[in-house]
Amino acid sequence: MCKKINKKEIIELIKLQKSKKTRKKSKIFVVEGLIENKMALKGNFKLKKIFFCKKIIIKKKIDFCILKKFIFFVKKNIYKKITYRKKTEGILGVFFKKKINYENELNTYIKKKKYMFLIIDNIEKPGNIGAIIRTVEATKIINFIIVYNNKEIYNPNIIRSSIGCVFIVPIIKLSFNKILKYILNNNIYLLGTSIYKKNNICLYNQNFNLNKICIIFGNEHKGISKKWFKYIKKNIHIPMYGEINSLNVSVSVSMILFFIMIKKYIKNNIFKN
Amino acid sequence: MCKKINKKEIIELIKLQKSKKTRKKSKIFVVEGLIENKMALKGNFKLKKIFFCKKIIIKKKIDFCILKKFIFFVKKNIYKKITYRKKTEGILGVFFKKKINYENELNTYIKKKKYMFLIIDNIEKPGNIGAIIRTVEATKIINFIIVYNNKEIYNPNIIRSSIGCVFIVPIIKLSFNKILKYILNNNIYLLGTSIYKKNNICLYNQNFNLNKICIIFGNEHKGISKKWFKYIKKNIHIPMYGEINSLNVSVSVSMILFFIMIKKYIKNNIFKN
Repeated sequence: MCKKINKKEIIELIKLQKSKKTRKKSKIFVVEGLIENKMALKGNFKLKKIFFCKKIIIKKKIDFCILKKFIFFVKKNIYKKITYRKKTEGILGVFFKKKINYENELNTYIKKKKYMFLIIDNIEKPGNIGAIIRTVEATKIINFIIVYNNKEIYNPNIIRSSIGCVFIVPIIKLSFNKILKYILNNNIYLLGTSIYKKNNICLYNQNFNLNKICIIFGNEHKGISKKWFKYIKKNIHIPMYGEINSLNVSVSVSMILFFIMIKKYIKNNIFKN
Repeated sequence: MCKKINKKEIIELIKLQKSKKTRKKSKIFVVEGLIENKMALKGNFKLKKIFFCKKIIIKKKIDFCILKKFIFFVKKNIYKKITYRKKTEGILGVFFKKKINYENELNTYIKKKKYMFLIIDNIEKPGNIGAIIRTVEATKIINFIIVYNNKEIYNPNIIRSSIGCVFIVPIIKLSFNKILKYILNNNIYLLGTSIYKKNNICLYNQNFNLNKICIIFGNEHKGISKKWFKYIKKNIHIPMYGEINSLNVSVSVSMILFFIMIKKYIKNNIFKN
């Protein structure tokens, strides 16, 4: 039943791993690893092909039978060529990108009575973006993320560091002007995270029980873009007790979401001890 | 007063950036960036030389006057060659490694009545190690970190991602057997973070108000090494509400330390709203 891979395809797969241009042109992308592929299927991404390396995969319990017609087998030496992580579980999926109308997507969320979302303003490192998306998925506090930069969400490093959460967390890409219009028109309470601004409030004192909240996080080095400043109601900060006054951006996001999560889900007093 | 750099030195500096071997052999290492260099000085590392790139540094308020005899000036094109981040603040320090007797170091901490420390068990990514050290510095919950693997703390990626906190947070490198001996002899309560173990406890229910606590975090993929399992009293987990059951390791460390920090420092009820 299962087909074999040809040389041309091997070259294409390597290109898909490395080149944003190739992914853009071909409208497909690659997904390595078991969880990551399951997440892509769960996120309703359309599968093109899936490559299994028998030697690696043999010990794993996988039920990809329904995907039989998409399955290709590759030898270990080929698998190592076409994958980035050499130790992944012997699975490499090729998926079609989704055609998403981001404005329509946003409209479905923004009309609800109560929601909270993040704006990721030009965060550079795929590892940070991935870790943020992973935390968003795990905490279930945030309804969607707006990415406001040129980062491609099909970047293999983002897929990897989010362990595929990038496929199931709603991510919307829009320009500054469009985001701003939505925020102003919908009376959304905009929280920043710049520690140097005057309208600064300790995380502990911020009321997160508002109907419409957006929290914006900025670039690893430059922070939040200046053009946001006049629209930000308050800047929340995490209390710190050492020499430094900032944390890794994915750590900051995670601490803030974790704090809101505790407040939202925990009814009993967990701070007795 | 200030000297110029020669070709041989340029080559040496590039090697110091890239090669662990060179750093090991020469017993020196390089530090990029303003905060990072300040941290190295604060951590009492002995300066060998410091390179300034005037064109980049000119706008920054820096008082390195006391270091005059160590200062070298380099042109922008040279600076770009010898640095990893091309946009750093125009400062590259060269420092001597410290000769540390890790067992003596550990003894000074371990004899105290009350302390809490982390074991980092074979965490691979310098970015994760750096982010953890940065959080440890900011939260001031943890007295020291034991690194139990081969990662070199003078790795430029760890320096960068910890923004130099690696120089001021006490970091001890020891073998498994030695660490274990200390833990057993000193009656230290060992907490793991493996979610698959039976002796699992929710983070919220763990009492952190014990005299001697060690929390151990494992590798990004493999988790905590098996040989620790029988010594671990409880495995704490962070409640998650999504599809996935794990977080980025530096995020997990940060959430746990943040939680303990809230419990330690905050007296009033911050969970009213």
